[in-house]
Amino acid sequence: MVAKALPKPHLTQAARPATVTVDALNEHGESVPTLIAGEHPLTLYLDKREIVTLMTLGTAPEALVLGYLRNQRLVTDIRDIAEVQVDWETDSAAVTTLGGTRDVVALLERRTVTSGCGQGTMFGDLMDDIDRIRLPDEGRLDAATLATLLDNVRRYESIYKQAGAVHGCALASADGAILMFIEDVGRHNAVDAIAGLMWLDGMGGNDKIFYTTGRLTSEMVIKTAQMGIPFLVSRSGLTGMGHAIAEKVGMTMIGRAQGKHYLLFTGGQRFNSGKA
Amino acid sequence: MVAKALPKPHLTQAARPATVTVDALNEHGESVPTLIAGEHPLTLYLDKREIVTLMTLGTAPEALVLGYLRNQRLVTDIRDIAEVQVDWETDSAAVTTLGGTRDVVALLERRTVTSGCGQGTMFGDLMDDIDRIRLPDEGRLDAATLATLLDNVRRYESIYKQAGAVHGCALASADGAILMFIEDVGRHNAVDAIAGLMWLDGMGGNDKIFYTTGRLTSEMVIKTAQMGIPFLVSRSGLTGMGHAIAEKVGMTMIGRAQGKHYLLFTGGQRFNSGKA
Repeated sequence: MVAKALPKPHLTQAARPATVTVDALNEHGESVPTLIAGEHPLTLYLDKREIVTLMTLGTAPEALVLGYLRNQRLVTDIRDIAEVQVDWETDSAAVTTLGGTRDVVALLERRTVTSGCGQGTMFGDLMDDIDRIRLPDEGRLDAATLATLLDNVRRYESIYKQAGAVHGCALASADGAILMFIEDVGRHNAVDAIAGLMWLDGMGGNDKIFYTTGRLTSEMVIKTAQMGIPFLVSRSGLTGMGHAIAEKVGMTMIGRAQGKHYLLFTGGQRFNSGKA
Repeated sequence: MVAKALPKPHLTQAARPATVTVDALNEHGESVPTLIAGEHPLTLYLDKREIVTLMTLGTAPEALVLGYLRNQRLVTDIRDIAEVQVDWETDSAAVTTLGGTRDVVALLERRTVTSGCGQGTMFGDLMDDIDRIRLPDEGRLDAATLATLLDNVRRYESIYKQAGAVHGCALASADGAILMFIEDVGRHNAVDAIAGLMWLDGMGGNDKIFYTTGRLTSEMVIKTAQMGIPFLVSRSGLTGMGHAIAEKVGMTMIGRAQGKHYLLFTGGQRFNSGKA
């Protein structure tokens, strides 16, 4: 069977430089030129309607905008999107749909009433979704592949190593090879940008591993589950609600993963530690 | 002059336990009971109108709710608040005002249109504010007091040390003594809760130091400036926009502060490193 290429939206390629250098004084009173991560407001317009201002590193703005629209379910099919135009002169991203967006006003009203700005998501809706998600059980991950993934990730974290103050997310294949790697000043942005890239490529999540440098909070687990990815790995710790949701959707979740160390928290049926 | 005690809102005292223990398997296949931070949805109702769902550690929910209302400017005077009732059976915080809230609908509509869920703030409004803020120049901080503050903070970080996955914020007096210390799964929540406690106590910020374990992003700098605090110290790094806003409002901002090390980024006129 030959896969038919889907029409893709027209995208600008408006990546910004990731870092700037500023002067600082250290504890010895010495001047230290210091590389820091960029942070820029990007106001998203959907068919000329203002939706949100995201604070972003700006290295993958088009993917971020697509992923945001996808994860907030403001657009449900990427084929409906004709164009994403990012313009840093006006700090704006203008998204044009093919048929116009019918329900945005209703969706935005709902967002105001039922959900949260505090964590950047539509909480009520998301929890409804979670009840419907059960991740497929076939995938397997072993300790050697996890080690390969962690080693690959270590080599990719360029902006963090240079400037700190960013979170990184990676999408990896089942053998631990990194397919996508995005860093952003916002944890949620990095996840959204990966969701945007997967959407563009028509890529499913069920044979993938998601890695994040950030903490495994409820929202991180929910977004990974929404992408259909059964494996979630983090260098950091987790929260009680992240743990509960991972159990509910049947996710294999691994925290504190760095070097040779890790803690397997949920979904052990898919994981082979190589130990008896 | 005798300060007259202001009437204060009636508050529940509905703090939740900060941690839960879950089982994990380490890289040797050993079972490791692991303490993790709690995370709970808390839906805020203002005069029976649903405003937002915050994901919180839940150890200072009343202060969080007050600080959220203050920082989002949904209520401008704490004397207008009669009661904050937190009920974890329904994961809700019901806030009752004395006169009823007149403008909430308009404020919420504005939030939808002009501002961001991505970072949890009303971006447009906040940037307008920043143009009006110029922090007072009198305060002074020297390297020895900074060292005292960092040492005090190190001893306070109990939940982080136990369970990770939380950010801590401290409000300190000019001599480095900690007045308030709040940890939360959300960086913004910890700041908001401190703003709520300051509001309750009628406490100004101009002779205070604000400490955060989190990164110095634009929003962190903006909130500190809104609280009128001239000193902002973080263990972590900063972003370009955080740096630019700190310069604009004249804030003394210190990053990478840990042990004996720190980097002074802005507002050097208030800081004495003790070096020639």
